[in-house]
Amino acid sequence: MLTKEENEKLCRIEGEAPMGQLVRRYWMPFLLSSDLPEPDCEQVRVRLLGEDLLAFRDTSGTVGLIDELCGHRCADLFYGRNEEGGLRCIYHGWKFDVNGWCLDAPTEPRDSNFRLTVRLKSYPVAEQAGVLWTYMGPPDLKPELPDFEFMHVPEGHLYASWSTQACNFAQAIEGGIDTAHSIFLHSTLESHRKLDEWKKTSTVSNGSGSIAQGRYRNRDNPPLLHAVDTEFGVLVGGQYVSQEAEDYWRFNLFYMPFYSSPPGGTGTKLVHAFVPVDDVTTARWSFTYNLERPHAYRDVMAMRLGSGVHVALVPGTHTPQRTRANNYLIDRQEQRTLSFTGIAGIGEQDFAVQEGMGTIVDRRRERLGVSDGGIMQMRRRLLKAADDLEEGSEPYEASHGGVYRVHAGDTMLPADVKNWAEEPKAKAALAPKW
Amino acid sequence: MLTKEENEKLCRIEGEAPMGQLVRRYWMPFLLSSDLPEPDCEQVRVRLLGEDLLAFRDTSGTVGLIDELCGHRCADLFYGRNEEGGLRCIYHGWKFDVNGWCLDAPTEPRDSNFRLTVRLKSYPVAEQAGVLWTYMGPPDLKPELPDFEFMHVPEGHLYASWSTQACNFAQAIEGGIDTAHSIFLHSTLESHRKLDEWKKTSTVSNGSGSIAQGRYRNRDNPPLLHAVDTEFGVLVGGQYVSQEAEDYWRFNLFYMPFYSSPPGGTGTKLVHAFVPVDDVTTARWSFTYNLERPHAYRDVMAMRLGSGVHVALVPGTHTPQRTRANNYLIDRQEQRTLSFTGIAGIGEQDFAVQEGMGTIVDRRRERLGVSDGGIMQMRRRLLKAADDLEEGSEPYEASHGGVYRVHAGDTMLPADVKNWAEEPKAKAALAPKW
Amino acid sequence: MLTKEENEKLCRIEGEAPMGQLVRRYWMPFLLSSDLPEPDCEQVRVRLLGEDLLAFRDTSGTVGLIDELCGHRCADLFYGRNEEGGLRCIYHGWKFDVNGWCLDAPTEPRDSNFRLTVRLKSYPVAEQAGVLWTYMGPPDLKPELPDFEFMHVPEGHLYASWSTQACNFAQAIEGGIDTAHSIFLHSTLESHRKLDEWKKTSTVSNGSGSIAQGRYRNRDNPPLLHAVDTEFGVLVGGQYVSQEAEDYWRFNLFYMPFYSSPPGGTGTKLVHAFVPVDDVTTARWSFTYNLERPHAYRDVMAMRLGSGVHVALVPGTHTPQRTRANNYLIDRQEQRTLSFTGIAGIGEQDFAVQEGMGTIVDRRRERLGVSDGGIMQMRRRLLKAADDLEEGSEPYEASHGGVYRVHAGDTMLPADVKNWAEEPKAKAALAPKW
Repeated sequence: MLTKEENEKLCRIEGEAPMGQLVRRYWMPFLLSSDLPEPDCEQVRVRLLGEDLLAFRDTSGTVGLIDELCGHRCADLFYGRNEEGGLRCIYHGWKFDVNGWCLDAPTEPRDSNFRLTVRLKSYPVAEQAGVLWTYMGPPDLKPELPDFEFMHVPEGHLYASWSTQACNFAQAIEGGIDTAHSIFLHSTLESHRKLDEWKKTSTVSNGSGSIAQGRYRNRDNPPLLHAVDTEFGVLVGGQYVSQEAEDYWRFNLFYMPFYSSPPGGTGTKLVHAFVPVDDVTTARWSFTYNLERPHAYRDVMAMRLGSGVHVALVPGTHTPQRTRANNYLIDRQEQRTLSFTGIAGIGEQDFAVQEGMGTIVDRRRERLGVSDGGIMQMRRRLLKAADDLEEGSEPYEASHGGVYRVHAGDTMLPADVKNWAEEPKAKAALAPKW
Repeated sequence: MLTKEENEKLCRIEGEAPMGQLVRRYWMPFLLSSDLPEPDCEQVRVRLLGEDLLAFRDTSGTVGLIDELCGHRCADLFYGRNEEGGLRCIYHGWKFDVNGWCLDAPTEPRDSNFRLTVRLKSYPVAEQAGVLWTYMGPPDLKPELPDFEFMHVPEGHLYASWSTQACNFAQAIEGGIDTAHSIFLHSTLESHRKLDEWKKTSTVSNGSGSIAQGRYRNRDNPPLLHAVDTEFGVLVGGQYVSQEAEDYWRFNLFYMPFYSSPPGGTGTKLVHAFVPVDDVTTARWSFTYNLERPHAYRDVMAMRLGSGVHVALVPGTHTPQRTRANNYLIDRQEQRTLSFTGIAGIGEQDFAVQEGMGTIVDRRRERLGVSDGGIMQMRRRLLKAADDLEEGSEPYEASHGGVYRVHAGDTMLPADVKNWAEEPKAKAALAPKW
Repeated sequence: MLTKEENEKLCRIEGEAPMGQLVRRYWMPFLLSSDLPEPDCEQVRVRLLGEDLLAFRDTSGTVGLIDELCGHRCADLFYGRNEEGGLRCIYHGWKFDVNGWCLDAPTEPRDSNFRLTVRLKSYPVAEQAGVLWTYMGPPDLKPELPDFEFMHVPEGHLYASWSTQACNFAQAIEGGIDTAHSIFLHSTLESHRKLDEWKKTSTVSNGSGSIAQGRYRNRDNPPLLHAVDTEFGVLVGGQYVSQEAEDYWRFNLFYMPFYSSPPGGTGTKLVHAFVPVDDVTTARWSFTYNLERPHAYRDVMAMRLGSGVHVALVPGTHTPQRTRANNYLIDRQEQRTLSFTGIAGIGEQDFAVQEGMGTIVDRRRERLGVSDGGIMQMRRRLLKAADDLEEGSEPYEASHGGVYRVHAGDTMLPADVKNWAEEPKAKAALAPKW
């Protein structure tokens, strides 16, 4: 439960809002490299933190992220010409480079230097892991990129996608770090019927994750949630009590300011980014990477079509096919006989619950239980960082990309463990391979 | 004419608005029983007085009307599973019964009683006459149902339907009790051409109502409107002066707080309810019942398709096919040659004039005449009851269902009648058969 | 650049806004005569200065422009019956004439004079040049029509059209009087490639305008802008320096309060009107007239389909086919290989830049250069006239239709000209033929 004021502080990121100022201290993914596939290709509208921008790749292949409107008379540069090292406005032919400088103002006298006084707002862009990143904070504080494991995996091991989500970024993060929901929201009825088998044997997996989780993590054994602050954000430990010498633990990660990672299947890892487009819209990013081998071609094809956590998109866009307006194409017959939700797609299942709350959920209405401990800790961390920044204290992790070198995982730990996050087996589960 | 303040008081029913508080003192129809056709069927979104709710029929057949959002983390229960005596949220599997109690919270520790502290908002539901009714007022004031005649007719005598209407409930009521409009809005050009015949003979009916009305009620003989307060609301008498010993009278009824009944054809009666969905949306209910015999199957089929006062709906919804956005599919050629409006459907003709004013009409702009006396009295009654309630005085009729035992009708009365409402022939016309 | 306050004053025209009060002092075109093709035809919704109105042509052929809502109970007269000298409401049959007087109130007693006290808002209408004009100002100040040349050309010489534009009228005017943009926004890549040829010879035209402009007016020779106040508004002179004895001058006209005229091709003239529908919508009118001969039938057909400055419309409406919502159907391949914009249609190219700024552009963001001198002068003129009116001083030209007897044009003037607007050759270029 949050007060109205706390909720506003947690969620609002447009304009001068404190949380928006905090998010500006971090690099943010905003497009796939393939969204701007080649030099001088078509420019793309980008909206971030409530600002309307344009991204374009110039003749040399460099990407710019600049104001959407021309610096002269405010015509929309989306209709402009991407040609010879810059974007040229169709109204009067003024031309701008990736840094926003005006290269040509052909309606001004030939001997005028007026154009040198005109510069568009522009943000720095980095291209890493097939993704375009930007930094919208104070230029003199521009940090290094967060050093995620998926940035180091070999060619072909990473598949990334993004789609627009019609709610605030904070309730998307809350879904991302919520370890308790997947055996409901993302489950099949068959998995529930197998409950008795799971209880009796460790050889039956529910199909995602290690064999151990099939035994301990099920509908009859809710986790005890533990959450601790870390350098990178919040480490959430879900303890599935076994009544044996060791308990099963799952580690969900919240990396500041909007990343999450759940413990996935063996060999495959997943990181989400929930990038604030505006107060009521979020870009949900999914980075699926394989520690061992490149993704098979058929798996890439399937992910493009919306399998796994990836979302089925309207072709040529990043807009989901299944939305609140069409009730996520819920199939009640499937819901009765096959899956827990009747909604196709893990991402779409997430959207149904996250967007269904309304674009900014009123957290005075919620009743948090034991299983929501990670979410509470994540909120405290974000709110404190925003408060600290208002008082002049910059977030440490924003400028220390190395703290992001940790991945999600699971393990067994002694039933009487005290400092669980310090246990060698826990640290081993969290250590990146790449 | 109402001032801006009076108009706001008459129309606003969301939140703490006085008129909304008044309406909460009464039972309201909100769904057909057939909208929830069987145990464990698909839940249905319901919006009433600006509140977003869910209706569902549980395994035992009992209907609940509860908050749309889960009491845990506010996921939308519309996507939930209706199973084994309750509605289970797809996010974390929490389950609620028809009274809003939490039956299961599987993400909480097995020995926790936390769920007992979580209860959804819920409203009592009654099922009567094939219709689901709810009461949204103070629980300790819950009254008996209004005792309408249509609740007593034998099986098959009643046909009920409802559709969404895009305007405030008060201007819908005003259409419902307006006796003067039907020989214009709902007429054919042929009926106007027959005017001379009507004047000469009493053997030509205009097709609706008694033979007498064909003689006296026509475009050349506007009614003198009389309106008196009654226990159930307002009795509107339209006097059609005959220049003979007796005048023709038609009685329209306004039952508090949102019902109307016009004098219909012989043997068939009609009651409307205009239930406030929110300030700018109304659910228009039509209860058509036959005093003598069951509706013929072909008539039921025709009403389902939108004949009579029933509205042609987009299949599978309660949304009209003809809306302001498509100008009610007005046919100008038909308007020139056949009907007064060129708009198909009595309900749709009503919508065209009621919605065409805007969602909340500015009553400073109107100019009320003699024929609007019933409307003026209805407004006074509603405004006074809202004022009285603010001062602590509960509405009498809300808790006395028996006062609703009166139906609309017409009769001849002496030309020099004084207390018209007390005349035995008037009382006879108003007395229910069932 | 304008301050927020200046911008609001320039743009807002609804309600009591000063600029709206100014615009009310002038006649405004609001429909084509052919939009109301014959007596008793279907009425048409008209929105002007934020007011919702209805236009109809009565049995005698007279056009009325009246309130959209009935004076009795506010039903929408759009659904009314246009019959026998007036518009009859479908609700209760009340009937109004073109001046808003109530001709019949059949629900009132036959001997009542109540209807004589009910009058709809109505505005005077003039029909001239195949266009319907209205005046929405104080009745006692009603002026004569502006005396445009196109009102005097013989039958068949004029083609007029209008379409809805999704932005404020002021930014539409700014496009209309902006002489610098057409060699960019409305150009082909071929025209830019011909630049070298143009520089060498006076025999190559760019296809629009006189041969002289092909020589001097090109991408390498931006104009020096001069603007002077005149009786009709602002005369904008674009001087294309030739380095020879004479320079090439083009005269763009801004007629108060919302007309513009660019110097067009030989023999053909063009006047635009940008009529404020509301703060964020404009009716863009284009009057294309030939000084020498009637438009050829094939040219009229082409203009109807959207050629030249005329806009391709959704059939049966004045709504453009190409809108911001569909990115004006921009064709990026055409933009790379054929035209500067890839957008079909001169009007649509204008819409792309004018609407792309947002419905009311924030003029704090612009950076005006030398070529924007005409726009600055136009804004000063409008703002001053609005200020003057607030202080009680009526605009002179509004009541002196004769000052509109001037058309756009181009000419050569001596390189050392001082009072360019007073030069006989300039005056000759501006003098109307009709």
